[in-house]
Amino acid sequence: MTAIPPGSVGEVAPQRAGFLEPLILKAGRTLASYELVYETYGTLNADRSNAILVCHALSGNHHVAGWHAEGPRKLGWWDNMVGPGKAVDTNRFFVIGVNNLGGCHGSTGPSSIDRATGQPYGATFPVVTVEDWVASQARLMDRLGIERLAGALGGSLGGMQALQWTISYPDRIRHALVIAAAPKLSTQNIAFNDVARQAIVSDPEFHGGNFYAHGAIPATGLKLARMLGHITYLSEDLLGEKFGRDVKGGEYGFNYEVEFEIESYLRYQGDKFAQVFDANTYLLMTKALDYFDPAKEAGGDLSKALSAARAGFFLASFKSDWRFPPERSREIVQALVKAKRRVTYAEIDAPHGHDAFLLDDVHYHRLVAAYLDNVAGEIGAGARQGPLIVGGTELEEMKGFRSQEAPR
Amino acid sequence: MTAIPPGSVGEVAPQRAGFLEPLILKAGRTLASYELVYETYGTLNADRSNAILVCHALSGNHHVAGWHAEGPRKLGWWDNMVGPGKAVDTNRFFVIGVNNLGGCHGSTGPSSIDRATGQPYGATFPVVTVEDWVASQARLMDRLGIERLAGALGGSLGGMQALQWTISYPDRIRHALVIAAAPKLSTQNIAFNDVARQAIVSDPEFHGGNFYAHGAIPATGLKLARMLGHITYLSEDLLGEKFGRDVKGGEYGFNYEVEFEIESYLRYQGDKFAQVFDANTYLLMTKALDYFDPAKEAGGDLSKALSAARAGFFLASFKSDWRFPPERSREIVQALVKAKRRVTYAEIDAPHGHDAFLLDDVHYHRLVAAYLDNVAGEIGAGARQGPLIVGGTELEEMKGFRSQEAPR
Repeated sequence: MTAIPPGSVGEVAPQRAGFLEPLILKAGRTLASYELVYETYGTLNADRSNAILVCHALSGNHHVAGWHAEGPRKLGWWDNMVGPGKAVDTNRFFVIGVNNLGGCHGSTGPSSIDRATGQPYGATFPVVTVEDWVASQARLMDRLGIERLAGALGGSLGGMQALQWTISYPDRIRHALVIAAAPKLSTQNIAFNDVARQAIVSDPEFHGGNFYAHGAIPATGLKLARMLGHITYLSEDLLGEKFGRDVKGGEYGFNYEVEFEIESYLRYQGDKFAQVFDANTYLLMTKALDYFDPAKEAGGDLSKALSAARAGFFLASFKSDWRFPPERSREIVQALVKAKRRVTYAEIDAPHGHDAFLLDDVHYHRLVAAYLDNVAGEIGAGARQGPLIVGGTELEEMKGFRSQEAPR
Repeated sequence: MTAIPPGSVGEVAPQRAGFLEPLILKAGRTLASYELVYETYGTLNADRSNAILVCHALSGNHHVAGWHAEGPRKLGWWDNMVGPGKAVDTNRFFVIGVNNLGGCHGSTGPSSIDRATGQPYGATFPVVTVEDWVASQARLMDRLGIERLAGALGGSLGGMQALQWTISYPDRIRHALVIAAAPKLSTQNIAFNDVARQAIVSDPEFHGGNFYAHGAIPATGLKLARMLGHITYLSEDLLGEKFGRDVKGGEYGFNYEVEFEIESYLRYQGDKFAQVFDANTYLLMTKALDYFDPAKEAGGDLSKALSAARAGFFLASFKSDWRFPPERSREIVQALVKAKRRVTYAEIDAPHGHDAFLLDDVHYHRLVAAYLDNVAGEIGAGARQGPLIVGGTELEEMKGFRSQEAPR
């Protein structure tokens, strides 16, 4: 039995929900049935008003906080954000993490067995979109008896889902916390995604997406995709500080072996990822990113697209993020202001680039905490007990901070 | 017979120079003999003082201006810059373009036959550096009877060679024109290069660099490398303007076929490149980029590294260049100022990103022309006859411009 550190939700177990009602996808295709794997932290209150859905980004999953019995060292990907006393305080909120449809961590996806054929879906798994994910998440909320979310929260592609919730289900979400996101990908973003996808599909081990049947993994393509992605997740300054031009052994080797420390780091990250992630899921997630563009159906007018939203909005961006830089969040903020929606926006001076949304940053976590303190007040979920915990560290009293910086 | 448009050097023919004296490389290895292919434009003057060496970047070659008899439509890669009446005015200067050692356009490189084995060098071709290129270029100048260059000129990796000339041969170069360059690659630059290299070496058709013997080309890897490179050559704004989120056929296809216009463009560029460029040369060129760091041997002090230089310097950068942004050129400028060297620096407001150094830009070409007008004066090569030609367009008189903006 592992001791539970302060701020941790402790040991958790994934749960499964099967859905037999067909889901009609944006692509026009239908998923006859599917399963979603999810985790929950905290307790749903009597009036079922304190639920916060955490949406994951490209390579994330349902395991947001705590640890599993079989992997006590592997904490959830947002464990620094979610837990008792943390910014998303599980003493007050009932937090749900879900693996998206098309994922590779338990929810129905390309590597799942298609009941119709008895074989993995592979290339036949339909392209799913942010709208589809939100629709499937809404059904999970139905299953959990949650009519209206206190909030949906996510970074990057996860932030896009939180934003989409306010458009797809304006009456079912009180607040959207949209972090390090963009209202749609830029041309450059799409370009990088396409290089990543081409690396995967042109790997001979990809077998047109049906590599499962060949007992193969397109590890080379996935590795390249991840290496490339990784560069875009980190700021140039951080890379420079962390790795600089350091060379293994100190001197140039004048050959094509791994040499600079940054090469070693990226290849390691790429290899690790290629062993655990599904190539078809990677394709599908990047495509969902490319397609996300809520303004599209409103004639390109994001403000119009958001005009039916009833939620309050919290947006945050990171100054060193060059994948989705602050300008992109400001586009959403401006559209919300124009649509006369309630919006709080923070630009955070963290050095880590896009990845900052996943990392400990006291100012960032305080802002999320302060916003959610207000949300807790709104739904009668009570006040924060004790200091805010960022990572494993208890911070001083929040009160003074709240009175100055609380979002309205 | 093709008519010669104004400003064009017209039809040109490559020349070859063989070198039998071994070249000791930075890597410690020796090339027993080698050939360089080169072109010249204009006339070497009586005192052999009007030579300008054009150094090429990653995928460039010796064919800088004009056209070849067999390809009358294929102009040299810097034809807009070099010609009679152009910024690098062949009425006054004798301009030399050379394919670098290790290249794949005629100079000895990995795809050349190694006389020792009768087989292509392939993986056995040594890693060459910017210093090695400059050393081999100096030998070519010896052969042409040019003791001292009026200037060396290049963009990107070509600019690095121009800079290296002032360090390696301070007495043999009057002026260095260093455009869109950097004093060394950033960690992020190296990271992108490594992804490109990994794409190539992990292509099964690469065969450890000896693909020639297999009648194969690692076209997939080269394509990916070029797609990735291409993204870094163009500014995000330009990509957005040129391609935006435009989709072939106007509607999302919800599949993994080519869909966004940017995908189509990049794949086309990648495929085209993979058919004409040598994979080993690509590896070698990127590695030369990674290794370039003239400050390294001066204890990291670029100013010290440049203190022996006697040349005058012209540096230019482009505000939209995120591969080698203006900060990188300013590092060189600051080191030169600290070393009390003569330096002229311009930051040019062109929208194209790194590729701007190759493109028509009136302000940019005027600055180069003005700087070289002064160089021409210095060596007694006479005044510009008639207006400056940028691309195919004659610009108004340079006089007024020169008097205001001429570099000192």
